Amino acid sequence: MRILTLADTKALANMELVLDALEPVYADMANGAAGNIPRADLLAPHADCPEAFHAFKTMSGSVPRYGTTALRLNSDVVHWPGMGDQVRRVKIPAAAGDRWVGLVLLFDMGTGEPRAIFPDGYVQRMRVGAAGGLSSKYLANKDASTLAVLGSGWQAGAQVLAHCAVRPITAVRVWSPSRENRERFARELSVEARAHVQAVDEPQAAVADADIVACATNALAHVFQADWLQPGMHLTNVRMQELPPEVYARSDRVFVHSAEGQPQHHFVGDEGAALPELQAGWFHPAYRDFDLASVPTLADLIAGKATGRQSTDEITSFVNNIGLGTQFAAVGAKMLEKAQAEGIGHELPLDWFLQDVHP
Amino acid sequence: MRILTLADTKALANMELVLDALEPVYADMANGAAGNIPRADLLAPHADCPEAFHAFKTMSGSVPRYGTTALRLNSDVVHWPGMGDQVRRVKIPAAAGDRWVGLVLLFDMGTGEPRAIFPDGYVQRMRVGAAGGLSSKYLANKDASTLAVLGSGWQAGAQVLAHCAVRPITAVRVWSPSRENRERFARELSVEARAHVQAVDEPQAAVADADIVACATNALAHVFQADWLQPGMHLTNVRMQELPPEVYARSDRVFVHSAEGQPQHHFVGDEGAALPELQAGWFHPAYRDFDLASVPTLADLIAGKATGRQSTDEITSFVNNIGLGTQFAAVGAKMLEKAQAEGIGHELPLDWFLQDVHP
Repeated sequence: MRILTLADTKALANMELVLDALEPVYADMANGAAGNIPRADLLAPHADCPEAFHAFKTMSGSVPRYGTTALRLNSDVVHWPGMGDQVRRVKIPAAAGDRWVGLVLLFDMGTGEPRAIFPDGYVQRMRVGAAGGLSSKYLANKDASTLAVLGSGWQAGAQVLAHCAVRPITAVRVWSPSRENRERFARELSVEARAHVQAVDEPQAAVADADIVACATNALAHVFQADWLQPGMHLTNVRMQELPPEVYARSDRVFVHSAEGQPQHHFVGDEGAALPELQAGWFHPAYRDFDLASVPTLADLIAGKATGRQSTDEITSFVNNIGLGTQFAAVGAKMLEKAQAEGIGHELPLDWFLQDVHP
Repeated sequence: MRILTLADTKALANMELVLDALEPVYADMANGAAGNIPRADLLAPHADCPEAFHAFKTMSGSVPRYGTTALRLNSDVVHWPGMGDQVRRVKIPAAAGDRWVGLVLLFDMGTGEPRAIFPDGYVQRMRVGAAGGLSSKYLANKDASTLAVLGSGWQAGAQVLAHCAVRPITAVRVWSPSRENRERFARELSVEARAHVQAVDEPQAAVADADIVACATNALAHVFQADWLQPGMHLTNVRMQELPPEVYARSDRVFVHSAEGQPQHHFVGDEGAALPELQAGWFHPAYRDFDLASVPTLADLIAGKATGRQSTDEITSFVNNIGLGTQFAAVGAKMLEKAQAEGIGHELPLDWFLQDVHP
């Protein structure tokens, strides 16, 4: 039983490993050879902070190809402050040292044994980026070279890394509301992705003539407008409501990450049901026409069970509507293989985690 | 972050602590002051053992009263062998040293921080026993002194402990198919529960004139017959199908553990849907008339929101249809308090489980 620290996971989960781990597992999901317990959230009013909630979240997935089941959990203190005219979901770093709590646990499907525990932060970022990147690998035009990124936070960086790995990207243009943030992002990602990353002052300047638009914000409202669409564009997001319904309507092909449209929400008390995020996304009336049952998944696309782009002019969209436990099982299994080979992490006695009484 | 071993949990989770921890939390659940993510199972065919599955199971619960959220998981290798004319769900001890894997993780609802990890075996047993015992505390006749136990396995012992704590039990009669098992059980529980426990050769000999009948088997078929019912009897079980539908129909009052009737089942591939346990219990056509929405819960009963026994002649039943994460949060919180006070367990660096990146 190995504990990997956050620093360990940063060293292990590079984008190449993450993309290689994930791609065949999407095909497995479409072929009934990998499966998930969908995400479920449990929200309880915070005892001390009005308008904040303790948000506990779990998702699990089994990947027989790697003999691995993963459970990913988050134990967050969340609130929804206004920022300009937008409401954002913000996780308060309430743990010691102003930190957050998210963990992945890996299990061996042959013996049931626990294999590893590690913080989810880097893996979370890389697997979301990789899903966007894989959507572009299968949907964007082959010669796509210009990437627009809307958002300059934690998730946005992984979109750049993933897209640079799957397409011959020569120019990245980033916009976010804060000049300071987007300029820092441009400097950092120029180094991290070894790409030409430029901060621009308006979202339109980022998306004009872009082959691929990656939205990666924590906004609960739209960050892109339908009249910015151009023939041949491929769009990805990390929350469906980043794109207005018209964008999906005008896309020639739309793919979702999972047909499980939204997390299950459970509450302590009734106040939770009125939270801003439950008024957005799938829950928003504007998206009610979006019939999930008829929308193919990224897994269908990668497995060759759904038709991808048919001409260079088509507009395609990928909605990263919800995460999947199988992503953590796939990436976790490959990370752990490397950690074991390189002796990374803290080994704990397996005895602590086993029992000789029938559970 | 404290690791409690199985031996630690055995020392900490005595029946008195478990009953005291749980009782107010049932009332909280009925009053919207505690909540759950219901149990979900993910079944994948085992790579090496035909007819066995890797069964991964999670449930979570938040208990503001104790500031604690618990996640309970099981990573089992399960099969369904026939035994006589009955099919049983058997967990194969496939982990090192012929052991099983079940874990509880506790979190602080104020900070989100992880607080403890421990194997679930003893707590699992005690909280199931305590639920049966609490049903008897609120439903059995006050002077109930004779307890019949059907089953002599891991779960059956906790039923004896719990019932002896809530009623003036002077005689316990146990029956199970194996003479050797039931006689060992009688010897062991006589000591553990300081009660007069007698093994009998027929189930009828156990239940005749019993005030309380506790079924605690892993059978997927009935272990009690409706014509064994007697006025004033209270019945509990650990699986609804231990009692035939006629028993519920002839009970004056029936209570369930949770209105979430059955676990969510998810599968890798389609084979799982044909498993024996999915043909039993709530899934069995015989129980289809059992309208969960109209059946009050143990929480409703303890909160005083549902009417209990109205005369000494009424027959009452409690169906422990499904476990709840709140049980592990409640018992875990009280165990951890004691462990901290007494310095029990292994302390790990909290740093390993926190992150300074936004998850």
